Amino acid sequence: MEQEKKKKMQTDSSPTMATGNSSYNYANNSSAQRKMTDVMKPRIEELIANKLDLGRLAANDNTFRVADLGCSIGPNTFLNVQHIVEQVRHNKYQTMISTHSAASSSSLPEFHVFFNDQINNDFNALFRSLPLERDYFAAGVPGSFHTRLFPKSFLHIVHSASSAHWLSRVPPEVVDRGSPAWNRGMIHYGESPKPVEDAYRAQFRKDMGGFLKARSEELASGGMLVLVFPGVPDGMLQSETQISSVINCVNLSILDLVRQGVLEEDQLDNFNFPVYFPHPWEMRELVEENQSFSSIELEVVDPEESTWLQGGVGLREWAVAIRAAMEELFARHFGGGEILDKIFDGASQKIAEHAEVIMNTKCKELPLLYVALQRK
Amino acid sequence: MEQEKKKKMQTDSSPTMATGNSSYNYANNSSAQRKMTDVMKPRIEELIANKLDLGRLAANDNTFRVADLGCSIGPNTFLNVQHIVEQVRHNKYQTMISTHSAASSSSLPEFHVFFNDQINNDFNALFRSLPLERDYFAAGVPGSFHTRLFPKSFLHIVHSASSAHWLSRVPPEVVDRGSPAWNRGMIHYGESPKPVEDAYRAQFRKDMGGFLKARSEELASGGMLVLVFPGVPDGMLQSETQISSVINCVNLSILDLVRQGVLEEDQLDNFNFPVYFPHPWEMRELVEENQSFSSIELEVVDPEESTWLQGGVGLREWAVAIRAAMEELFARHFGGGEILDKIFDGASQKIAEHAEVIMNTKCKELPLLYVALQRK
Repeated sequence: MEQEKKKKMQTDSSPTMATGNSSYNYANNSSAQRKMTDVMKPRIEELIANKLDLGRLAANDNTFRVADLGCSIGPNTFLNVQHIVEQVRHNKYQTMISTHSAASSSSLPEFHVFFNDQINNDFNALFRSLPLERDYFAAGVPGSFHTRLFPKSFLHIVHSASSAHWLSRVPPEVVDRGSPAWNRGMIHYGESPKPVEDAYRAQFRKDMGGFLKARSEELASGGMLVLVFPGVPDGMLQSETQISSVINCVNLSILDLVRQGVLEEDQLDNFNFPVYFPHPWEMRELVEENQSFSSIELEVVDPEESTWLQGGVGLREWAVAIRAAMEELFARHFGGGEILDKIFDGASQKIAEHAEVIMNTKCKELPLLYVALQRK
Repeated sequence: MEQEKKKKMQTDSSPTMATGNSSYNYANNSSAQRKMTDVMKPRIEELIANKLDLGRLAANDNTFRVADLGCSIGPNTFLNVQHIVEQVRHNKYQTMISTHSAASSSSLPEFHVFFNDQINNDFNALFRSLPLERDYFAAGVPGSFHTRLFPKSFLHIVHSASSAHWLSRVPPEVVDRGSPAWNRGMIHYGESPKPVEDAYRAQFRKDMGGFLKARSEELASGGMLVLVFPGVPDGMLQSETQISSVINCVNLSILDLVRQGVLEEDQLDNFNFPVYFPHPWEMRELVEENQSFSSIELEVVDPEESTWLQGGVGLREWAVAIRAAMEELFARHFGGGEILDKIFDGASQKIAEHAEVIMNTKCKELPLLYVALQRK
């Protein structure tokens, strides 16, 4: 059932739930997320085959526990989780059993899978989409993944795709007229003065710091944390990425609407995307500060592999993808329907006008940051 | 927030979710359920104080796990669970710590609470009502409690109030014209020929057998299963209970509507309440057959204690209570709105007409069956 809805803002004042009826909804625009699943697959297989030490995991109750953080309502979360369960069950336990003849198939563990997202996620839709033929016990866990969600040393693999770049809130300085980080007229930090980017980075440090601290407590020793989300290659600026240029086109469209008197200047000034695309060095720094994890892999995935614009998907798709990911956010701030159409029609036009510049940005794709950590 | 919705049918073809907007909804009619909570409280306190052996429970991960089965959307589930957590934390662990000076408060466990109900339960509403100040980690578990919901030996206390009398389905024989158990013209078994009651009992045996088997696998050795739900005292017939007389009044009202041509005869014949009120001896038999539990208490609660009609609540409340509990079921079968008003207006009238008979039934209250079992 292709009814997964778009990712939602990771904040306390989260937008209302999407109905999934919009033509811009996740179901019709999940290629980026699906691509992330494809990027993860071989990496997770290798990780489980070569790094997961079942003897070390305190699986003394013979249950293997997996969490997917930022699960939305499916179907990608089910594909990701099923893949992990299969890899652990077939490629790990059964290998172990066949090499230890004393063990029998009765020592195969049971699997317990926890699906987490914000409290305003549509868990009813998630539960209705749960695969009937699943071979794991399932539970839903509402709450922010920037804080603790599980008891100590409870989990064996934590997975999160396309979620960890969401901030818990818009950095307060960027909507504060008295601050040097006031992001006047802008909706993100890519093309803004340095203090704005600094405010975003500080918020990300705080949020990801909380995320890593919570996971270090929840993961059993030897357990794995696997993340994939958009990032920026080391040595490159956010403004040198294609996504930044495209967000700027959305920004220019909103500016036009302000000039035409359709939107208020204040509405623009108070609107900022609560997402941050970190460099690998920033994640590395946070992992080192946390001290609880060994880093197995922390890299920007080869763009050739991660591009989801391959195969002739045009630039206009960017605007559609941003609308799909951000529609709730926009609707809550600017109102729904006609005004959203105006913003994104304008953005498409700007993208067409700036096509040459956009196509020639230093970083042409949506770079993905892949992070695999092991709890010490 | 008094927004708990009425209990829903424990079947695969469950009714659609209630909006909670009806004046007959649970919020306005939760006195019976609240009464059950009151009946449970002192019993659970005694149970935890005197029977729960923390040393025996395999709490080697220092987490204490509680499940509430048939939780609906609150608030009663939160009250029940909070009470259990408090009793275990304060009256059990802290007593243990104060008598073992070597132990410190750092050995206090973390609590993990699982809220279960049918997949069509409104988990979004449940999660939005979760107490913000709770001192436990929470998860929602969708699925039928007649089957396995958790890994082996995972749980320490399983609690279920006002849910275990729901059958997984209407016994198929009672809507089969070719069967001696065809329940023609009737909506429950209380006033029906014996084969109908036998069919209901067989379905209950199957369902409760599955319930006990699943719980015996999920509970850790020494863990507790605590149930409260309507039952019939040993030596008494279902037809001798007040609830049976009241259900009969609803039945008579529907019969009138069939005679008037407002409803079809087939509609009545195909409608049956999927609930069964067992005798203690039936539960005792099932527990013995299961073999995994020691019975700590299995009794019909003293009517003086369990009556929720005390304090001058009149007979008419019965019809309101049945409507509150069964409205979805009725609406799905007969259609909503006007027809429901007709059925229950008629039922109120029948109750008034039969008041003397109803007031003089052998069993005047809604008897509650209290079951406390310990996993061997």
